[in-house]
Amino acid sequence: MEDRVAGEATPLTRGPYRKGIERREQIIRSAAEVFGELGYIGGSLRTIGDRVGASPATLIQYFGSKEGLLMAVLDEWTIQTAQWAMPGDPPGLEYFRAMPAIMEFHVDHRGTLELFLTMAAEATNPDHPAREFIQRRYAETVRHWTAKLRQAVVNGEVAALTEEQIEAEIRILIAVLDGIELQWLLGAELDLRRLIATHIDQTITRWQSTQSNSLETGQLRMP
Amino acid sequence: MEDRVAGEATPLTRGPYRKGIERREQIIRSAAEVFGELGYIGGSLRTIGDRVGASPATLIQYFGSKEGLLMAVLDEWTIQTAQWAMPGDPPGLEYFRAMPAIMEFHVDHRGTLELFLTMAAEATNPDHPAREFIQRRYAETVRHWTAKLRQAVVNGEVAALTEEQIEAEIRILIAVLDGIELQWLLGAELDLRRLIATHIDQTITRWQSTQSNSLETGQLRMP
Repeated sequence: MEDRVAGEATPLTRGPYRKGIERREQIIRSAAEVFGELGYIGGSLRTIGDRVGASPATLIQYFGSKEGLLMAVLDEWTIQTAQWAMPGDPPGLEYFRAMPAIMEFHVDHRGTLELFLTMAAEATNPDHPAREFIQRRYAETVRHWTAKLRQAVVNGEVAALTEEQIEAEIRILIAVLDGIELQWLLGAELDLRRLIATHIDQTITRWQSTQSNSLETGQLRMP
Repeated sequence: MEDRVAGEATPLTRGPYRKGIERREQIIRSAAEVFGELGYIGGSLRTIGDRVGASPATLIQYFGSKEGLLMAVLDEWTIQTAQWAMPGDPPGLEYFRAMPAIMEFHVDHRGTLELFLTMAAEATNPDHPAREFIQRRYAETVRHWTAKLRQAVVNGEVAALTEEQIEAEIRILIAVLDGIELQWLLGAELDLRRLIATHIDQTITRWQSTQSNSLETGQLRMP
């Protein structure tokens, strides 16, 4: 099994163009499923290939290597999830108010969610090939969401928050979404959308009250 | 490689008793590391054995199967984490106030945390052998923590909360801890203990204010 770097080009030139594209998409879908179920390390090229009737050698021919296939899966994931990203990218607090609706997408696309959480947990290993992708994804989310909360502060939609408080609030909010989705994927009987809607409501109420300033005191009390 | 069911007994009778126990513990430590790094499916018996100079056959001899080894790792994990469980199991709100101190343990035992999160993410796959263990662990945590919050309500330490609200609050709190630890393991520059301390302070303040009753309104508003 040779390890090609630019394996993608091969089927496009060899077989009919359209068939090659379709085959490639089939393999990516199978790989996304298998990596979500068994992890990247545990999901073998054989298992991925078996689901679409292709040999590991064919997979290598298309993607150069298992890592190349992972990158194709993550690119596809980025495109898929960008499609349901907040329509219109609303400003300030509106952005957070629109979040529960996104839970609908997650409920309907369980595999997409499972893939992300499995890759994120595996990527806690510094040598994991998806680590940089996952880190970049979190960094982008933190940056985008802190900008929205900062905007809400500037517009007077919420009480004054320091930069440090804004980042802490956003990191906790991301944690809530990841963590509650993990519980849901593990089979907990919970209404994902309703739980998140309630949590977002509470969080916005807290941001709007001066109570959020007690954060600072809480932080100073720490060693 | 035969698949024994009661493989553990073998080294205890064959070799010197103490040496067998030590070898077993070495293998469990290596497996906990490897499963945390590569996942259960991705972490092979060969990789685990290589770190302690043992063959896959020896591992099977000790634990019967790879699944048997996983069960031994999870049992050991239960014992280890029980040791740092809240000393004295404080009642009501005190229980939650003591939580930031536990973050210290996590910071010092990164591998333990990584193992749990990796197994939890993998166990979103219904066929994963750790799924029942992970589900039981979450159910126990939900039960124990909801009992503490219920106690705080009964004692008048916090405002009145319905049973549904209590469970929602606890599930969100567990989500925060899992999610923020995941970000930390992924290399985010954050002060785990301080962030959690601030969050617990905020949460307790919210529980104590009548504001928490607005939850009900928030929930009724949902479809």
